[in-house]
Amino acid sequence: MSDEDQIRALVDTWMKATAAGDIDRVLELMDDDVVFLGPGRPLMRSREAFASAARSMEGKVRFEGVSDVQEIKVFGDWAYLWNQLTVTTHPANGGQPTRRSGPVLSVLRRKSDGRWVIYRDANMLEP
Amino acid sequence: MSDEDQIRALVDTWMKATAAGDIDRVLELMDDDVVFLGPGRPLMRSREAFASAARSMEGKVRFEGVSDVQEIKVFGDWAYLWNQLTVTTHPANGGQPTRRSGPVLSVLRRKSDGRWVIYRDANMLEP
Repeated sequence: MSDEDQIRALVDTWMKATAAGDIDRVLELMDDDVVFLGPGRPLMRSREAFASAARSMEGKVRFEGVSDVQEIKVFGDWAYLWNQLTVTTHPANGGQPTRRSGPVLSVLRRKSDGRWVIYRDANMLEP
Repeated sequence: MSDEDQIRALVDTWMKATAAGDIDRVLELMDDDVVFLGPGRPLMRSREAFASAARSMEGKVRFEGVSDVQEIKVFGDWAYLWNQLTVTTHPANGGQPTRRSGPVLSVLRRKSDGRWVIYRDANMLEP
């Protein structure tokens, strides 16, 4: 698989694992020192911080996402990805689902074991 | 100057030229095919699109910005920059200034003439 195909596969795995509530699988797709940036909220730094946020939502919501990759560029062991994402959040209590969409700009790196992971992530989804 | 210093100088020039309303100088700091992404608004693609948006605001507002560079990583002729930005917009008619702040994640490239320019830009500033 080309690097670009590997990164597309990472996005697919992320979407499917998120939809399935498989937090451990999602955690494998990010760097230990990942940083998630977004508008109007504090940054989230490290896989552990993501894990603890994801676990606090476990069983409370179900996510359904559609991704539309716009661009991938690879520079050796680094790459960026521009994606257009739509995520629908379904509350487990049967409440009204909410839908957010927008662009995501991510920086990825290739780890020493050859796997690509998310390293920096700018998530601009809005209702 | 190291690549990192050149990118820091680009940010400085961008902030100063924006504050001075020097649109032509700002336009030199981005790629022809630049893409600006943000939450809740359509993407803006190309230097020409930026120029026409900036010129439509000319004389109506004055921008004052403070930047706090968090991280720069260079990969040959490509780089990314994570910046924390605060921008105050002063209406020329003396109206109340508005203040927005947040992270910006940018991808830069080095042009064939050696100059670094902004290529992709994820702007997550919020009031």
